[in-house]
Formats: sequence, structure tokens, C-alpha cells
Amino acid sequence: MVEKEPFVVVGGDAAGLSAASKMKRESPEREVIVFEKGRWVSYAHCGTPYFVKGEVEKLTDLLSLSPDEIKERGIDLRRGHEVVNVSTDEKTVTVLRKDGTETEQKYGDLLVATGGRAANPIEGAEKEGVFTLHGLDSAAKIRALLEEPDEFSVESLGGDGYLDGKEARRYGGIEPPETVAVVGGGYVGVEMVEAFSAWDVDVHVFQRSEFLLPGFGEEVAERVEKHLEENGAEVHTGEEVVELRGEGRVSGLVCSDGTTLEIDAALVGVGIRPNVEIVAGSVELGESGAISVDEYGRTSVENVYAAGDCAEMRHVVTGDDAWVPLGLTANRAGRAIGATVAGERTPVGGIAGTAVLKAFELECGRSGITDLDEARDAGYEPVAESITAGSRSGYYPGAKETTVRLVADRETGRLLGGSIVGEDRAAIRIDTVATALEAGMTVEEVERLDLAYAPPFSPVWDPVLVAAKVLNGKM
Amino acid sequence: MVEKEPFVVVGGDAAGLSAASKMKRESPEREVIVFEKGRWVSYAHCGTPYFVKGEVEKLTDLLSLSPDEIKERGIDLRRGHEVVNVSTDEKTVTVLRKDGTETEQKYGDLLVATGGRAANPIEGAEKEGVFTLHGLDSAAKIRALLEEPDEFSVESLGGDGYLDGKEARRYGGIEPPETVAVVGGGYVGVEMVEAFSAWDVDVHVFQRSEFLLPGFGEEVAERVEKHLEENGAEVHTGEEVVELRGEGRVSGLVCSDGTTLEIDAALVGVGIRPNVEIVAGSVELGESGAISVDEYGRTSVENVYAAGDCAEMRHVVTGDDAWVPLGLTANRAGRAIGATVAGERTPVGGIAGTAVLKAFELECGRSGITDLDEARDAGYEPVAESITAGSRSGYYPGAKETTVRLVADRETGRLLGGSIVGEDRAAIRIDTVATALEAGMTVEEVERLDLAYAPPFSPVWDPVLVAAKVLNGKM
Repeated sequence: MVEKEPFVVVGGDAAGLSAASKMKRESPEREVIVFEKGRWVSYAHCGTPYFVKGEVEKLTDLLSLSPDEIKERGIDLRRGHEVVNVSTDEKTVTVLRKDGTETEQKYGDLLVATGGRAANPIEGAEKEGVFTLHGLDSAAKIRALLEEPDEFSVESLGGDGYLDGKEARRYGGIEPPETVAVVGGGYVGVEMVEAFSAWDVDVHVFQRSEFLLPGFGEEVAERVEKHLEENGAEVHTGEEVVELRGEGRVSGLVCSDGTTLEIDAALVGVGIRPNVEIVAGSVELGESGAISVDEYGRTSVENVYAAGDCAEMRHVVTGDDAWVPLGLTANRAGRAIGATVAGERTPVGGIAGTAVLKAFELECGRSGITDLDEARDAGYEPVAESITAGSRSGYYPGAKETTVRLVADRETGRLLGGSIVGEDRAAIRIDTVATALEAGMTVEEVERLDLAYAPPFSPVWDPVLVAAKVLNGKM
Repeated sequence: MVEKEPFVVVGGDAAGLSAASKMKRESPEREVIVFEKGRWVSYAHCGTPYFVKGEVEKLTDLLSLSPDEIKERGIDLRRGHEVVNVSTDEKTVTVLRKDGTETEQKYGDLLVATGGRAANPIEGAEKEGVFTLHGLDSAAKIRALLEEPDEFSVESLGGDGYLDGKEARRYGGIEPPETVAVVGGGYVGVEMVEAFSAWDVDVHVFQRSEFLLPGFGEEVAERVEKHLEENGAEVHTGEEVVELRGEGRVSGLVCSDGTTLEIDAALVGVGIRPNVEIVAGSVELGESGAISVDEYGRTSVENVYAAGDCAEMRHVVTGDDAWVPLGLTANRAGRAIGATVAGERTPVGGIAGTAVLKAFELECGRSGITDLDEARDAGYEPVAESITAGSRSGYYPGAKETTVRLVADRETGRLLGGSIVGEDRAAIRIDTVATALEAGMTVEEVERLDLAYAPPFSPVWDPVLVAAKVLNGKM
């Protein structure tokens, strides 16, 4: 028997390393090579706001696996190796090393797990003091800037050998900002408002549309906006930042309506784009621009898989392909592809777009389709209802107002999505909605769920049940 | 058109008043009479441990609706009226008034919502200082005993005109106990350990079987046992209390193995029995001894419904009738029956047996079938697995160990039940299990659920997902 060519993985983060680990565990004899262009591997993107805030002390705390642990799993990890081309005809990848030399690598199976990159479409985005939050080096630069120069040391960031120390050191030597603009009020933006606020700076957040947190619904957005302001941030909704100004360092911003603000740092969090360039000419892309895959994560080309922030997935509500880059699904899809490559065909699962976040004391969650226009585009006739109910029995101390918004299809009664906000165990309650969405439940079935009730945790009718009851009455 | 005879409800608590309220809202012209033998109506059973503890100040805080509010809804509420007989042939109930007189009442539709009563099968259970926790008068007596006589006043209990003041006053005048035995380590027993411990008494809890909290599984039980002991309680498992001794007031207990303990108060919490006597000769009872009903809450006799702790419901896993007396399902079934009687046929829904409780800092939850013998009896081939995982990303402050146990059927892969214990948002996570059970999901489908992930609330793989992953690997 001819030995199989190796399983080659492009990208050493959630999807790529989950796949490599699972494949190696199931087929220890087969070679697995992971090419990672940077130095960091296997790190927790979602933890970076808490590193900037200072709640997570060291960058290395955010690593799930060290390079040594990855090697112990029998994975041939090659950091500083950028895959610059894929030839699906030859079944090879072209790899550019740090030293500028190139090499070719044959593959038997290939996983494209190249992730995404932060979008930064704003004029002046290249100025000093303007950041995106994508990757640990960007988090390190932001925290370095926030620390006082006389207290800063690059070692305090805990980056060990991974960190781009030069940039971090440069920002560590600059006076901290007095006023920071967060451009984009999505969930990264909102988390970063909390992170900056911990550093005694004035924080302004700008959101182009009328409401923060698109995809969470107006009721959630209004409570979050109020809560951010109670915590000292200034929220500018309906204002689009079009330019960042300054000589070298950023010193001000301009909105489309002409409004200006003096700032000395900016975080641009207006979304990410999938990294698909190396396969854009050879595998099919979806409407979103991310790589189109089937239920096993297979692209249009045999033996080529894609997973994580560069790939689409099947949406559990619509059944259509959707691009919703999130951490859990990247891990899960990678793991499933590792199993499939090892011979046990495993579906990557669907995506409900479940997202949760903390904004100071508020907990927010969303899942499924919550935007009415999006629901109509998908062929539904959406009906929405929102309620506010206590998080515990009214007589039990600590009950907090919890707002739940549910959306259902009038014709079938099917639940399409939901969002939630509150201070007491609110976010995690979105899991009920996510599970009901995956099961294709109607809102009437949700109303009849036998959910948890005990005075310290929930009123007799959980807020999710109250919302289902009210929405069902409106159907 | 001949006017319909009234909708008569026996029992003025969760099921009865939910039905009366819903029926009256939908058909305001029809007469609704609620007979309640006691003085208390519409109160929160599940809150009584927190009243005993002192966390809920007044008994009246536990009322959902006052008699006046009930009357404002157009309901003819008659407290102190005990229904002593039902003639389904004549379509009448016989009512015994407080003054000893009897009357007959015709009904068009009848709801039996007579609830349950605490079982107390132990010899000596009638002694002074021996309590069950069922109803607000029993809670009042217990708290009266715990308060120092010179600080006690019957008004401090907040019972207004409802309270059985004589008994409460008598117990308020007695010196507080030094040692209390909680007989029965189910969820009421465990909640009462916490309640008594707040009063500076030595608390012993006795559980006949080897593990506390039957139905939560051994892993949950072990953590709860340890936690109760860390909080100063003594846990005696595998010890059956057979006798309570004392001259008038209880002074000691005896176990079946001859062990004795000096005590000066005891709480017997060994379960409840359904109150079915008034219809036992005329409607069919189920195997459990509770009233058998169909999916609309209808008994075997036309126009006679039953709901709440006196009735069975359909179990969402087995599809069989089951008797699991819990608050939410009583409310929901009552409400559905009210709608059905008003002309809109509405299913009462199923029961998963979802229960959650707090034991000091620990949060516990369970749903579905978790006992392996019970699963086998229902025709399944159960496989169980338990895991312990963090409640948050490891690098985020406040992560706590969360133990999840899941049970599935080997042949079909279907999830049968689960339980959970931990300190950080653990209990509410059982709602994911309850929803998956209602949907009939396989453990593989649960593994692929798109649940919430953000560092402050959950690791990438929620503990429920980790458990599903591990159990699925074992199938």
C-alpha cells in the first residue's frame, strides 16, 4: 500500500488545530502538518478584551495549547510559514518561510483554516494609535498604550517568545490616551468599551445604525446603550465615522454628518473579512465571500476542506449557507473534519449564530434570525414580541429585570430567533433558544417547555417562557 | 340558550387559580367558583424554605395574588370551603363550610386541583417540634420556633389575616432548638438544611439511600454532600429514621440500624402524596395513585379535569403517564385547562421532571430520566457519562468546576436525561437538557448544538457539550 500524502492544515488556530489533533488521535500513523504564518497558535480570540481590560494578566494565559503541547500530540507544527498558494491540480501548497525562501508541500487532504482579518475601511486607519482587535499582537499594543510608560515593561504583557515585542515596546513608551473612540458598536466594540473604561479614559462609541449590537434587537440595544452611559461611556448611535485625522498619531475623528471629536486613540471594530485569497481561484466561494462547504466541511474540490472564520456553514434556521464567524463552531467544524479525514465521516453541524457578551453588569445573548428584514428575505413572515420579566421569583432577593425578544414565523409558528438582556444569569438562557432553534420548535412548543424553576434562579415562568407565551398569543 | 352551569374549581393554588383566571379572561360571562378549604390561596410553595431561612421576610410576600385581586378578576373565590364529595352522575360537589354546614353546587365543568400533602410515615411524627413543610402555616410554625421567644411576635411573620396564629404563637413561645434533624435528603430536605443553618442550630440530614437527591445522580449527590458538610451540616446517608421519640416534644430519633440522636426538632421531607380522595371512586387513577388525565387534562369522566400535584402528566421522554408534582407544570396545566373549558382546546404539555435547587453556594439541576434502573424499566438501554469542566474560560476569573451527567439510550442514541451541579450559573444550564429532551434529540445532536460562548459565561465547549461529546464517544 502506498503511504498517503500528509494531511496539511493551513492556519494554527481553533479550526486548524482541532482538526489536526482529532485526525492525529484517530490515525496516529498519518502525518499532519500545520502551517501557521504567525508566531501565535491556538489562542482565545474572545479573551482579548479581558486582556486589554487587565482582568486577564498575561497574553500567554489566552493560549489553549503551547507549541510544545501541539508537538507532543505528534503534529508537525510549522510557525512562521505562510501558505501563499494552493494548487488543487497538483495537490500542493506553496509555503513562504520567514527567511524569504519558498517550498512546496504535497497534501493528501487539505484543510483551509485561514481565519479572518479585521476590516478597517476608514480613512486614516493606518495612523498611530488606531487599532483593530484581531490577534494577540494587536491586544498587546493596545494594553501597552494604556499602561503608564514608567510602569510598563514588555515582560508584564506575558508574551514570552511569541510577542511582537518591538511594536508593544513602542506603544508602551507613549503616554496613555485621554479619549478613546470605539468605532463600531457590535459585540467586540461593546466589550472594548468595558475594557477601556477600566483604564480611566473617556470612552466614546460610534455606531453607524440607530442601535448598538445589530442582531440583538432594539430592546436589547436600548438597555445596553443606557447601561454603557451609566458606566460613563458616551454612546453615539446613527453616526458614521468616516475619517480618522492626525499628524502621524490620531488626534481626531470626523463623522459623515460633519461632527468631529478630539481623540488620541481609536479601536475600529466594524467586522471581519474571511481570508480566502489562497484558494479563491480554485474552490467555490459562497455569496458571503467565504468558502462554500458541504455538511462535512468539504469544498467544491476533492480532498480540500475549509473551516472556521474563512468558511460558511449551514444555518440551522434557514438551512442555507451562512457566514457567521464564531469560536465554538470553528472548533467543532475543525474537530469534525479531523474525524472525517481520519475515515469517520462526521458532520460539522450547523450554526445558529448564538452569541453572548458581557457589558459591565449586563449580560446579553442572541441566537438565530432576529432581524425582521433578514427573516423576510429568507421567506418568512416574521412576528416579534418582547417582554421584561424578573430573573427570579419576585420575593427572592436579587431578582433583576430580564428582557427577552423572540421572533417567529406567522405561517408555521416556528421560532426563528431570539435575544435576551439582563443582569442575573441572562445570557446563558439564550441556550434554550439555541436548542429550540436547532430542533425546529414552534413558539407554542417553546411555551410548553418544562424549564427550571426555583426561587433563586427563575420565576415559575422563566422569562423565555413568558416571551413565548406572549408571542404565541400574538400569532 | 340555557346558561351553562359554572366552572367549578376545587383548590385555590397554582393549578386551580391559573385555570380560573384563564377561563374567566376568555369567557367573562361564565361563572367560575373556586373552593379552597384553607385560608391561603395562590402562594409559592417553593419559596417556603427561604421564608424559614429568613431571606423572605413575610409570609404574605409569598402570595402571587391576594383574595381581593382574585375577586377583581371576576372569580367567585370561597375560602374555608372544603369539597368533601363529588358526584359525577349529578354533576355536583358537596361543600363543607367552616361552620359545619354543607351545601351542594352544580358544575358544568369541574377542575380537581386538590394538590398533595406531605407524607409523614414515621412513628412519632405527631410529636411537638416535628414538622413537614407543606403550606404556609407549617412554614410559619417552623420559623416561629427558630426565633427567640423574647424577639418573637406573630406579626413579624407577616401572615396578616391568613395565618393560623394560634399555632404560630405557641411555637414562638418555645425556646429555639439546638439540634434539628432533617429526615429525607431530597430537594426540600437539602433546601431546609440551608434554611436551618442560617439560625445557628446543629443540622443533621438523614437519607435512607446511599446518596442525597435521588434523581440527580451520584456525582451531583457527592458534591452536595461534601458542600453541606463544609457548611457545617452533618450528612447521614444510608440511614433510615424509623422513630421520633419524646414525651410530648420530640427529643430524639432512632434509625433502623439502632443509631440514635438527641434532637429537639425535626423536619420530615420524604415526599408528598396526591389528594385524590374526593374523586377516587369516580375517576380513573393512574399507577402512581394520582389522577389519570389525557393531553388536555381531562379525566376519565366527561367535563371533569385534573391538574397540579394531584394529577399525572405525560412524560416527555417516555411518553407514558408520570406523576412529578412541580410548580411550573401545575401553573401551565391549569392555564391550558382554563383555555380548553373556555372553548379553545389547549394541550397541558408534558413534563420532563426538570428541577433545580440551591444548596448554599451550589446550584443543582436535573431533567428527564437519570436513574438507570428507571430507564431500563422504560425499555431503554441506558448509557451514562459524567464530566467536570469549567463554567467559564479557564483564563477568566471566577470559573468554577461544573459537573454534568448525561444519560442516553444506546440503541437510538436519544438523550434520556441529565443532571448538573456547580457554583457558577450551573442550575440554569439544565434548561438546555430539558429543551433537548422535549425535542427528542440524540446525544450526537446535543453535541452539535450551537450554544453560547463568551469567556465570562462559558468556555468554548459548554460543560453540557463536553458531557455530550464524551457520552457520544462511548455510545
